[in-house]
Amino acid sequence: MEYRYGLMTVQWDDEDRSLVLIDQRRLPNRLEYIRCRSHEQVAECIRSMAVRGAPAIGVAAAFGLALAAINSRARDRESFMREMDAAFRLLRSTRPTAINLFWALERVMGKGRSAGSVEEAKVSMLSEAITMLKEDLDVNRRLGDHGSSLLNDGDRVLTHCNAGALATVGYGTALGVIRAAREKGKRISVIAAETRPVMQGARLTAFELKHDGIDVSIAPDTSIGLLMARGMIDKVIVGADRVLRDGHVFNKIGTYQVAILAREHSIPFYVAAPLSSFDLKSRVDEVTIEERAYDEVVKVSGKRVAPRGVRVFNPAFDITPPHLITAIVTEKGVLEQPYEQSIARVFNPS
Amino acid sequence: MEYRYGLMTVQWDDEDRSLVLIDQRRLPNRLEYIRCRSHEQVAECIRSMAVRGAPAIGVAAAFGLALAAINSRARDRESFMREMDAAFRLLRSTRPTAINLFWALERVMGKGRSAGSVEEAKVSMLSEAITMLKEDLDVNRRLGDHGSSLLNDGDRVLTHCNAGALATVGYGTALGVIRAAREKGKRISVIAAETRPVMQGARLTAFELKHDGIDVSIAPDTSIGLLMARGMIDKVIVGADRVLRDGHVFNKIGTYQVAILAREHSIPFYVAAPLSSFDLKSRVDEVTIEERAYDEVVKVSGKRVAPRGVRVFNPAFDITPPHLITAIVTEKGVLEQPYEQSIARVFNPS
Repeated sequence: MEYRYGLMTVQWDDEDRSLVLIDQRRLPNRLEYIRCRSHEQVAECIRSMAVRGAPAIGVAAAFGLALAAINSRARDRESFMREMDAAFRLLRSTRPTAINLFWALERVMGKGRSAGSVEEAKVSMLSEAITMLKEDLDVNRRLGDHGSSLLNDGDRVLTHCNAGALATVGYGTALGVIRAAREKGKRISVIAAETRPVMQGARLTAFELKHDGIDVSIAPDTSIGLLMARGMIDKVIVGADRVLRDGHVFNKIGTYQVAILAREHSIPFYVAAPLSSFDLKSRVDEVTIEERAYDEVVKVSGKRVAPRGVRVFNPAFDITPPHLITAIVTEKGVLEQPYEQSIARVFNPS
Repeated sequence: MEYRYGLMTVQWDDEDRSLVLIDQRRLPNRLEYIRCRSHEQVAECIRSMAVRGAPAIGVAAAFGLALAAINSRARDRESFMREMDAAFRLLRSTRPTAINLFWALERVMGKGRSAGSVEEAKVSMLSEAITMLKEDLDVNRRLGDHGSSLLNDGDRVLTHCNAGALATVGYGTALGVIRAAREKGKRISVIAAETRPVMQGARLTAFELKHDGIDVSIAPDTSIGLLMARGMIDKVIVGADRVLRDGHVFNKIGTYQVAILAREHSIPFYVAAPLSSFDLKSRVDEVTIEERAYDEVVKVSGKRVAPRGVRVFNPAFDITPPHLITAIVTEKGVLEQPYEQSIARVFNPS
């Protein structure tokens, strides 16, 4: 299998029967790959953020479950499914907010449940994961194509965190929109907000855009207000870890305040999310916002930047309400307010 | 001389004729002091942010000029004043935004100009710097006393950057208000925004509050919106590098967006600034916003967090317009809107 849209974050090595992930903890200093041969390894990669980004987590988890399947020595369906349930639960427990994780595991698990035999289950679960990998690229290309109409030649676009090739199998959602606009000949320059504490903007977005020769600058999270007040940002586009049916968007911590700043300065604020990131069931107060480790805040590159013993807030995500969102870009088109209706329509086309 | 209000950021060692500064680049890992015996050393300490914070810079610069005076071997007033002019210009060039630097240098220089002899100039310039050091502590105590009425028992107060003992000779402006409220028996807990890129919140504010036994937590700059939306912040108080006559406030990058977020969530936003931080002459577009070094953003603790060759925005300050500011706390009382009038009144009491 060859997919060549720049960086490939998630790859399946069919010959070696292993999952190959870019180790994002090493970026931007080193581009290294991790090879996973077990679902436990995949779970650890998700938990430690070696692989991150809602769509990439989804596909990686799908292969995690597929690896559990093909590695199983179970002889009968019942013990096989018990093993699958355990692997499912382990993978599901890695991160609580991105909905794609649950969606992807459900899809692969469904194939296992409906298979007639253990052998059939192994084949169809792996095949489903491979399908999802290909779909992710296609979805991003279509999403990018729809979204590219929102960007004009010469636009200076702010993005937060990383919703790029490194957050997906490849190409990206928010950065896919930028790539697509560029493929249509529009000159786009990107400002990557650093995105403390894990610095996905500085480490990952700047890395992957530079890798593709796209104009990119880094701005501290504290400077976004000033840059907007100075007229240096024309549009904002971000990804999503989960979109609710009324248009509430869960995304990387900091997204909500960037949306408030965008509205304050009359700058369009776009969210790019594949339909696999939509959660039509949960209410806003039913979604868990992951609180991550103390050390993410008090240490940078292994060195302390805060005194010992001090308390820390480290929520990984926040919630942007629909009224702050100018449009939501999906692979089925650009959704506008009121989102309750436009989202319902895209999931239930009449 | 003994001043004991916790940490002393700027001290004059009269016996050794030297200026003793806390080296803030080493905090929070080590509490070390630098001894300056020349104005060049003082200038370098200001430039490299070994000493920072508008009031502390002012007093340090005053001693810088006093050191140039007492070290001078000039025999006649004319050559002495030429040396003083050169020292003045060097110290003035270190940082462009904090007004206290210019105010302090002018005060000490004035003593030199009006002295009848070189010896008299040396004595009165040093004496003026010592007066300013004492004044800074007294001003902060009075400012804190006025501001403490704005805080209620149980308040959870967000502060940005460091406007504390470490930004002044001691006690602090914004953190002086918190200290004063606490001395009056109010229980106050503080949330220190990290304040990328130099992390004064995590490194300095958390350090000095912990040092004094005041409850403090660190929050990434990206999390402020979420914390406000969750109702976890009751008040915001920050310092200022310069306050204009119409109430525009120049302060650490990120202040402006915190002010917007505060208004969005109906949270009072206070600025604490001594009158020495007021600039009654300049218009908002006449003030230089310092752009600091590339490495402040791309390296943390000496390790790269961004790919090589990427461009960076690194403005050190931003501008908060008066309509976002609930009140400005000074040593002469709490100023309210419209600031044009309340500021004029405090400088020209009838």
